[in-house]
Amino acid sequence: MTEKNKKAVVLLSGGLDSATILAIATDLGFQCHALTFSYGQRHSRETKSAEKVAKSLGAAEHRIVNIDLAAFGGSALTDSGIDVPKDSPDLDQTEKIPSTYVPARNTIFLSYALAWAEVLGAFDIFIGVNSTDYSGYPDCRAEFIEAFEKTANLATAAAIEKKGKYKVHTPIILMTKAQIIQAGTKLAVDYSLTHSCYDPNKEGSSCGRCDSCRLRLRGFAQAGINDPIEYVK
Amino acid sequence: MTEKNKKAVVLLSGGLDSATILAIATDLGFQCHALTFSYGQRHSRETKSAEKVAKSLGAAEHRIVNIDLAAFGGSALTDSGIDVPKDSPDLDQTEKIPSTYVPARNTIFLSYALAWAEVLGAFDIFIGVNSTDYSGYPDCRAEFIEAFEKTANLATAAAIEKKGKYKVHTPIILMTKAQIIQAGTKLAVDYSLTHSCYDPNKEGSSCGRCDSCRLRLRGFAQAGINDPIEYVK
Repeated sequence: MTEKNKKAVVLLSGGLDSATILAIATDLGFQCHALTFSYGQRHSRETKSAEKVAKSLGAAEHRIVNIDLAAFGGSALTDSGIDVPKDSPDLDQTEKIPSTYVPARNTIFLSYALAWAEVLGAFDIFIGVNSTDYSGYPDCRAEFIEAFEKTANLATAAAIEKKGKYKVHTPIILMTKAQIIQAGTKLAVDYSLTHSCYDPNKEGSSCGRCDSCRLRLRGFAQAGINDPIEYVK
Repeated sequence: MTEKNKKAVVLLSGGLDSATILAIATDLGFQCHALTFSYGQRHSRETKSAEKVAKSLGAAEHRIVNIDLAAFGGSALTDSGIDVPKDSPDLDQTEKIPSTYVPARNTIFLSYALAWAEVLGAFDIFIGVNSTDYSGYPDCRAEFIEAFEKTANLATAAAIEKKGKYKVHTPIILMTKAQIIQAGTKLAVDYSLTHSCYDPNKEGSSCGRCDSCRLRLRGFAQAGINDPIEYVK
């Protein structure tokens, strides 16, 4: 299957999941327009990783849009008054939604992706949501993605004028972290460029103890692949 | 009907429609948290009007969030390369979507409103969309609003944890401009504080010729009420 010359907007955070979906979209033949948000997250290191990943995977274009999610607070990732959880006993978030959940984040991200897609004349959007490893986030579930897709097809001039139908692709939604890493490795993703930690130190080394680091480390271990990034000793 | 002490997020542009919905939400007894976007629109005068309107109608809080819609272009309102249409023959936009349409704007606005609502613990969002006077905008239709509401109820931790159900209120969606002005006048909205023009002059006077000015002028004329703002002579 190839999608030669079709444009796609790919949401790219600089993390492992989104690097993998950029590789998948590229492999499908899409001309990829990568979109990264700088949203007052504590880990602005992510945007630097996103730049390197976009370049290494040959994205047609990469834009970083500043958005002010910290204006509202309500998350450990945007609100300095809430601590990032470490060594949490419930890593798979089976019990409750974690404090690192950012209110309406994926709705906002997909809305911007939709705006850019409409201007580009693209109808394909890729997002690296994953419901297996991270079941705690409501906006990572297939039913949310379907509802957004329906909204997109009613929201836009392009959809009304019947120029096309928006599709939100979620190629890794059902994969485990290990499967994602294996898929990306086959597509030559350079995971040394990616960043996952919610709370890196000043030198940029990952903490190894936040949920995001632990899911990453467990994924590499299960995949039998070496994680090439630096962790705090 | 009153909604005493219930919080609501009210999207407030500084225009006539959103001033009216803020008055309606307040009259219903909601504690109103007004949200204005500064989005690289040519008419930044709007945000100043929004401040005055929020104050005059006693909003509990008013926030102005900077968002970069101009990053993508594609609209006469955000892209300086596209002219604002003047004296257009098809004022009711029965034929096509106007160039003043901003890609995915209401989807983005509602996403931010949802984020703030979730942080506030509010489940009510008011938006001044209107499908009668402005049928050309796809994201002003009831079916779009319903799709977004469904998305909101899947997107958020608050909805998942069954703390409530999001409702997007569109009290003026079926009103004509004249009916909106009459409704607002009854609720003592001071329309001299509002701003509608897409292309005001340096002194802030409205052009009287863009679609937004002409719909406003026609609405006041049909309502039999004097429009208190300044127009270019």
